[in-house]
Amino acid sequence: MSNVVQMAGAAKAEENGLNRLKNLVDSDMDRVNEVILDKMQSNVSLIPQLANHLIAAGGKRLRPLLTLASARMCGYAGDRHQNLAACVEFIHTATLLHDDVVDESDLRRGNVTANAVWGNQASVLVGDFLFSRAFQLMTADGSLEVLDILSGASAIIAEGEVLQLMTSNDTETTEDSYLDVVSAKTAALFAAACRVGGVVADAEKSKTDALESYGRNLGIAFQLVDDALDYASRDSVLGKTVGDDFREGKITLPIILAFRRGTDEERVFWRRCLEELEQTDEDLPRALELMEKHKTIETTLERARHYAERANDALAIFPESDLRDALMAAATFSVDRAY
Amino acid sequence: MSNVVQMAGAAKAEENGLNRLKNLVDSDMDRVNEVILDKMQSNVSLIPQLANHLIAAGGKRLRPLLTLASARMCGYAGDRHQNLAACVEFIHTATLLHDDVVDESDLRRGNVTANAVWGNQASVLVGDFLFSRAFQLMTADGSLEVLDILSGASAIIAEGEVLQLMTSNDTETTEDSYLDVVSAKTAALFAAACRVGGVVADAEKSKTDALESYGRNLGIAFQLVDDALDYASRDSVLGKTVGDDFREGKITLPIILAFRRGTDEERVFWRRCLEELEQTDEDLPRALELMEKHKTIETTLERARHYAERANDALAIFPESDLRDALMAAATFSVDRAY
Repeated sequence: MSNVVQMAGAAKAEENGLNRLKNLVDSDMDRVNEVILDKMQSNVSLIPQLANHLIAAGGKRLRPLLTLASARMCGYAGDRHQNLAACVEFIHTATLLHDDVVDESDLRRGNVTANAVWGNQASVLVGDFLFSRAFQLMTADGSLEVLDILSGASAIIAEGEVLQLMTSNDTETTEDSYLDVVSAKTAALFAAACRVGGVVADAEKSKTDALESYGRNLGIAFQLVDDALDYASRDSVLGKTVGDDFREGKITLPIILAFRRGTDEERVFWRRCLEELEQTDEDLPRALELMEKHKTIETTLERARHYAERANDALAIFPESDLRDALMAAATFSVDRAY
Repeated sequence: MSNVVQMAGAAKAEENGLNRLKNLVDSDMDRVNEVILDKMQSNVSLIPQLANHLIAAGGKRLRPLLTLASARMCGYAGDRHQNLAACVEFIHTATLLHDDVVDESDLRRGNVTANAVWGNQASVLVGDFLFSRAFQLMTADGSLEVLDILSGASAIIAEGEVLQLMTSNDTETTEDSYLDVVSAKTAALFAAACRVGGVVADAEKSKTDALESYGRNLGIAFQLVDDALDYASRDSVLGKTVGDDFREGKITLPIILAFRRGTDEERVFWRRCLEELEQTDEDLPRALELMEKHKTIETTLERARHYAERANDALAIFPESDLRDALMAAATFSVDRAY
C-alpha cells in the first residue's frame, strides 16, 4: 500500500503547518482554554468530568484557532474573540458528543469515546449542555450578528448530519450529494468560525465574505483528507483504526469513486460490504486494493487540494501579513498532512 | 386501587382548565402553529417528517400557551410573542426527542416515540436542528434579554437531565434532590416561558419576576402530578402505561416516600426492583399496594397542590383580568386533573 507509506509523515507536516498559526495567537489561545475550562464547570459533576474527557484531552483546537487568527488578521485589538472562539469549540464538542452516539464509534482522537465510557445518554445531555453554554456566552457577548452566524451554522450542521444518516450505506450516493453533506456537517462551522473573527473585528463585508469562503473551502479540504486518511493513515496519526468507515458502511469519496469507476463485479462487492454490511476479514484488504487500482485515495486528495487552493485564493484580497501567510500555510498543510 | 378510580376524570378536568386559557389566546396560538410548521421545514425530508411526528401530533402546547398568555396579561399588543412561543415549543420538543433517547421509552403522548420509529440517531440530530432553529428565531427577534433567559434555561434543563441520570436507580434519593431535578428539567422552561412573555411586553421587574415564579411553581406541580399519574392514571388519560417509571427504575416522589416510610423488608423489595431492576409480574401490584399503604400518591398530590398555590399567589400582584384568572385556573387544574 504505497498510500500508507506516503502518509507516514502526516502528523509531522500538520504539526508544522498549524504551529505557525498557533504561535501567532498563542496568548489568545491560552485565554480561550481558560474560558473553556471555566464555562464547562457545573455543580453536576458528570458534566465537567465528561466534557473534560473531550475538551481538555486536546484535539487541535482548529476551529477556535481560525476565529482568533481571522479576528487578529482584520486588525482586531480587543478580547471578545476569545469568548467567541470558546463558543465555536463548544459547538464543535457538542456535535462530536452527539456524533459519537450516532456513529457508535469506539475511538475519537485516539481515546475511547465518551459514550463508550458513560453511555449514550450522558453524551446527548452533556452535548446539550455545552451547546446551551455556547449560546449563553454569545448572548453575553451581545452581537446579534454573531448569534445569527452561529445559530445558522448549528442548524445547517444538524441538517447535514441528518442528510448523512439518510444516505448512509447507499453506494449509489453521488459525489455531489457527498459534498452537500460535507459542506453542511463540517464546512459550515469552519466558515462560521472564520466569519465570526471578521465580524468581531468589524471588518468590511468583502473581508468577512472572504473569510467565510476561506473557512468553507478549508473545511471541505479538511474533511476530504480525513476521509482519505481513514483508509491510509496509521493508527498513531489519526487516532483511528484504518477502515473504520468501511466497517460502518460509511459512504465517503474514496468509496464513491471506487464504486463508480469499478466493474459490475466490483460493485457487487461494494454493495455486499457497505449496504448489507456482510464483511469478512478479507474484505478490507480487497477494498484497499480496489481503491489503489482506481486511484481513488489519490483523487480524493487531489479534490482536497482543489478546495485548499480555493481557500487560499479567497484570502488573497487581504494585505500580506504573518497571519495571512500562516492561514494559507494551514490550508496547504491540511492537505499535505496526508503525504 | 382507589387512586385509579379517583383519577378517572383527569383528562376532562385538565381539558376544561386549559381550554379557558386557550380560548383567550386562540388566534395567537393559530399563528404559533403556523410558525412551528413553517420553521421546522428543511430540504432534508426526514427532519419535517420526524418533527411532524411530535409537533403536529399535538400535545397540550402548554409552554407556548404560557408565553402567549403572560405577554397578553402584561398588555402586550404586538406579535413578537408568537415567534418566541414557537421557540419555547421547539426547545421543549428538542428535549423530548433527546429524552426519548435517554429513557428508551416506547410511548410518548400515547404515540410510539420518534426514536422507536427512526432510531436514536435521528432523534438526537433532529433535536439539535430544532434547538438551533429556536436560537435562529430568537436571534431574528433580536432581544438579548430573551436570548439570555432561554439559553440559561436550556443549560439548566441539560444539567437537570444529567443530574437525573446520575441519581437514577438510587432508592436513597432524597425528596430535596428529586426536587432539584424537577426544578431544573421541567420547571426551568415553564419559568422561562412565562418570563419571556413579560419581557416581550416590557413589563416591570416585579411582574416578570412574578411570572417567572408562577411558571416555576406551576412546572413543579405539573411534574409532581405527572409522576403521580404514572402510577395511577389509566392509559387513555396520559398516553402512558401505568408503572412505566417503576419498570425503568425511575426514582420519583411516590417511590421516594414509600421507601422512606417503609419497613426494612419493604426497602429490600424497593432495592431489588428499582436498583437491581429484578422484577416479576407481581412486583408492580405490590409496589402499588405499598404506595397505597403509605399514601404516597396522596402526599405527592398534596405537595403538588402546595406548588400550584404558590404559583397562584405569585400571580396575585397582577390586577384582576380574564387572563390572570385563566392562568390561575390552569394551575389549579394542573393538580385537579389527577382527581
